[in-house]
Amino acid sequence: MNISKKMNKIGQSPIRKFNPFAIKAEKEGKKIYRLNIGQPDIETPSCFMDAVNNFHEKVIAYSESGGETVLQDAISNYFKAYGMSYTRDDIMITNGGSEALSMVFTSILDPGDEVIIAEPFYTNYHTFVTAAGGNIVPITTKAEDGYDYADAELIESAVTGKTRAIACINPGNPTGRVLTKQDMELIAEIAVKHDLWIIADEVYREFAYDGNEITSFGMLSNVADRVIIIDSVSKRFSACGARVGCLISKNKDIMECALKIAQGRLCCPTLDQIGAAALYNIDRSYYADVKKEYEGRRDAVYEELMKIPGIVCRKPGGSFYIMAKLPIDDVEDFLMYLLTEFEDNGETVMFSPAEGFYATEGLGKNEIRIAYVLKQDDMRRGAQLIRLGLEKYKAR
Amino acid sequence: MNISKKMNKIGQSPIRKFNPFAIKAEKEGKKIYRLNIGQPDIETPSCFMDAVNNFHEKVIAYSESGGETVLQDAISNYFKAYGMSYTRDDIMITNGGSEALSMVFTSILDPGDEVIIAEPFYTNYHTFVTAAGGNIVPITTKAEDGYDYADAELIESAVTGKTRAIACINPGNPTGRVLTKQDMELIAEIAVKHDLWIIADEVYREFAYDGNEITSFGMLSNVADRVIIIDSVSKRFSACGARVGCLISKNKDIMECALKIAQGRLCCPTLDQIGAAALYNIDRSYYADVKKEYEGRRDAVYEELMKIPGIVCRKPGGSFYIMAKLPIDDVEDFLMYLLTEFEDNGETVMFSPAEGFYATEGLGKNEIRIAYVLKQDDMRRGAQLIRLGLEKYKAR
Repeated sequence: MNISKKMNKIGQSPIRKFNPFAIKAEKEGKKIYRLNIGQPDIETPSCFMDAVNNFHEKVIAYSESGGETVLQDAISNYFKAYGMSYTRDDIMITNGGSEALSMVFTSILDPGDEVIIAEPFYTNYHTFVTAAGGNIVPITTKAEDGYDYADAELIESAVTGKTRAIACINPGNPTGRVLTKQDMELIAEIAVKHDLWIIADEVYREFAYDGNEITSFGMLSNVADRVIIIDSVSKRFSACGARVGCLISKNKDIMECALKIAQGRLCCPTLDQIGAAALYNIDRSYYADVKKEYEGRRDAVYEELMKIPGIVCRKPGGSFYIMAKLPIDDVEDFLMYLLTEFEDNGETVMFSPAEGFYATEGLGKNEIRIAYVLKQDDMRRGAQLIRLGLEKYKAR
Repeated sequence: MNISKKMNKIGQSPIRKFNPFAIKAEKEGKKIYRLNIGQPDIETPSCFMDAVNNFHEKVIAYSESGGETVLQDAISNYFKAYGMSYTRDDIMITNGGSEALSMVFTSILDPGDEVIIAEPFYTNYHTFVTAAGGNIVPITTKAEDGYDYADAELIESAVTGKTRAIACINPGNPTGRVLTKQDMELIAEIAVKHDLWIIADEVYREFAYDGNEITSFGMLSNVADRVIIIDSVSKRFSACGARVGCLISKNKDIMECALKIAQGRLCCPTLDQIGAAALYNIDRSYYADVKKEYEGRRDAVYEELMKIPGIVCRKPGGSFYIMAKLPIDDVEDFLMYLLTEFEDNGETVMFSPAEGFYATEGLGKNEIRIAYVLKQDDMRRGAQLIRLGLEKYKAR
């Protein structure tokens, strides 16, 4: 009566360690600027609930395993605006981008198979790959280089006979790194050379700043048969609790396999799919407005962070995260200090310690991830609190 | 760039083979009585949409990974009515019973590990167990015995050094078999003796007829540490498209492991959980009404089926399925005939061929599963169409 060996390899979520202390601090009246999770404060467009409230079927019945056609069509149209052409058969609706990733790794990995990904990376990839029986092989990147990983030698040094895929989160979580078209072509070339799947986790697609053009692995026609795009409404439409994502590919084998898994779990929730269809059909001016908002937040938090002596931080080009290396040895110890001892006018701040974003033991201990999910002034104040906290922490 | 070996072991869903023919027949004007899937025609209680429509948060945010507390509390109260005591920590909300089963098998199975289950069984167990890297070891039961499997010798003959769990769908899908308290005690004893998990898939719990008392493995205190209950709103409340289920156990290890997986996929949809909480809080008279409705349907379809010469069918005690052995060699061929050639007054009928419910090669070829999800008169007509179709099929 044991837990499986593969699951015992997965550690506890680091969030669970700090949350009880945050809750205690809040109970004692402290205000905490929560910059630790990717839960934006931006309102979900009202068309979502409008569509849900307009649902009047008497029976909330199963929908199709691959998804509601109204949603598949809305997604198909969304991609058309970027010159990418996907049919209903190429689009599988999933329970958030999370389930899409689970399905992909379950579909392509046998025990011991490997997936290459640049570290630091979104920590739940650990769970998805491990639960599917596989292993992550990281490509280590550095704060000093702005977490660049588009280097042929670097990537190819990670390829082995067991490599099945290279996964790219673009724009990056947690790094905010944006791949250029050239970067993508380089990665595509390596994937072709070693016959690898390209898992393109592009849920932050609309969030590329500084006039960067939005690019996608779906735009490279020479790898159309090996690209698997992961998409989601969570971040783009600030609808994290809707849990609607999708898996998109022109490769029939992966879609066939994903459909087998999808049929096993029957379908995604009907109501959320109907709401999500309305989101994907939104006027494109929405994206510009939201992008402008996040860009302003990024600039604000970056400006404040750079006032910290000794910080290492390159301004990221996308998503809504910023990574920074702090001039201390142990950011977890510092975070605990911020939650339990520090305050400035009754306020403190919370960030994500970066260790959980690395696969390589010992890395990330002096790095943090900040999610710029609060308004500009709050972001400035949050970064200021890190600076003030750091001063007192070092002076103890 | 291959699909994993484990996923290649899973075949296509048999439903996909017949659906195109059903759609074609309907386009040609034929009416089909669809007795093949467990999608009831009973209205979802209106409290579900009332609760959803009352949701007025501006941001549809992540909920807790383990579930909304309002829903956990509603489920806890539901079980209290049966004398079973589960706290929030014992209840993990999942995307339908399906995800709960996936989580359990991922948690307890390493490659090659085995799960015992009586065949015929709900076909998606194949997918869940195989995707987790494990194997199903079936206990074969027979139509002639009403698919009874509560036999110590029979069950123990399936136990090997790799057995990790025994799974019981109770009341049964597809068999409708209801375990007695004595049956459960026998299975519990075997689980203790061989140190196995008991996976108690009790999503049809309220549907036990003929005055049978509703029982649950959760009522056996001597196995409380090894029982994992799977529950769902889909069938009980005719809310299949809400995709809300749960995994319930007093065993801390399994709950801890399931929480790791749950944190990986972040959370279940917020709206559906709020609706589901209203369902679990429904007045208990609802269960009696629905049970009476299904019992009447069962009696009607059973009575009509027994008019078929040579049929083997025992009246099942629960769920909303009835299995029958037909006096022909190949029910799939017969189903194809019903969809493409047969009609009676412009009407025909669809059932589930049983082969997919067996793990043992070659079994189930002359058996069918009928879901009594339509009104009594429709169920009678459906069974009559099987009889009329069979007469013409055999006379060809």
